[in-house]
Amino acid sequence: MTEPRRRPGRPRDTSINERALAATRELLVRRGFEATTIQAVAEHSGVHASAIYRRWPSRIELIEEATFPGLSPVSVQPTGDLRRDLRRFIRAYLAAFGAPAARAAAAGLLAHYQTAGRARPPEMYLRVSARPQFQDILRAAPPGSVDPAVDPDDVFDLLLGAVLTRTLLFAVTARHRPIERTVEMILRLLRPLDA
Amino acid sequence: MTEPRRRPGRPRDTSINERALAATRELLVRRGFEATTIQAVAEHSGVHASAIYRRWPSRIELIEEATFPGLSPVSVQPTGDLRRDLRRFIRAYLAAFGAPAARAAAAGLLAHYQTAGRARPPEMYLRVSARPQFQDILRAAPPGSVDPAVDPDDVFDLLLGAVLTRTLLFAVTARHRPIERTVEMILRLLRPLDA
Repeated sequence: MTEPRRRPGRPRDTSINERALAATRELLVRRGFEATTIQAVAEHSGVHASAIYRRWPSRIELIEEATFPGLSPVSVQPTGDLRRDLRRFIRAYLAAFGAPAARAAAAGLLAHYQTAGRARPPEMYLRVSARPQFQDILRAAPPGSVDPAVDPDDVFDLLLGAVLTRTLLFAVTARHRPIERTVEMILRLLRPLDA
Repeated sequence: MTEPRRRPGRPRDTSINERALAATRELLVRRGFEATTIQAVAEHSGVHASAIYRRWPSRIELIEEATFPGLSPVSVQPTGDLRRDLRRFIRAYLAAFGAPAARAAAAGLLAHYQTAGRARPPEMYLRVSARPQFQDILRAAPPGSVDPAVDPDDVFDLLLGAVLTRTLLFAVTARHRPIERTVEMILRLLRPLDA
């Protein structure tokens, strides 16, 4: 409510970006994926449609950035306690993908990708990936707790699958297993054979 | 083409089921999720709509069963070679979820679950789960190759996530990592500490 829109010295674009992204999230939750058009975002945010188009080529990219904003760097600052860091990381990741706007957008985005039928670089879609932050956590782990033979990317892929399955695909039907089980599995993947 | 529709002694219902399920898959691929209604399936299969409704309460259950028929038992008959069995299992699983009808239905089903907003028992949705077949493979593995302390359900959950991420979510943008990487990760999860 009283949050300042603009601060001295802060680039004006940031405020425009944030207003458009916030409006996109609100529209997704209130009116759904189909109704979340550039025009609707412009009306809801007060940002002119042309300014939105200058930043995002279509509503798809706008919705992607609005719904998958990545993890706050603060929330996963590694402490060197591998189990604790992984737990915080997985919680933050689940919260990001389980957010109402992300859930509201998921089916629509999936349908778009299926219909579009051609590849977009995964880095584009996952430019908000938490992969680097996962690697930071592994680097901060105590010596000997992470097998150097294991590929962090392979482990991250499994973690991503677990998070997406829990949030987007089975948001409703989730088996509600404790997060600790996923933490335990990731630790198993990382541990050296002679640990 | 020349496949017999009915065999002596075979229950007639089986043929009706199969015709309705096959028509559902064809409609999904050709006309998409929204157009795959009970009425359309009735017209396309020659099975009366009332006979379809006797078997499936709505088109959702019909589409679920048509698109996620589970794995052919033959394709994952365990041989006792854990790595080989896992590889065949993952391949068959990827093929099932990556089939055209499954991909055509995925976004629509996801949207339905999100909108329906209330839980259906996961066993219903996953009544076609390959979980029992995964457990069969672990039971057939040589002694000492599977850590008895690890919960097969936890491992299966990660495997399911990896398969869904590869097929339904990132069918288009998949990073195309070799299946062997997933096999390797699952073996890592299963191995005893002192292996």
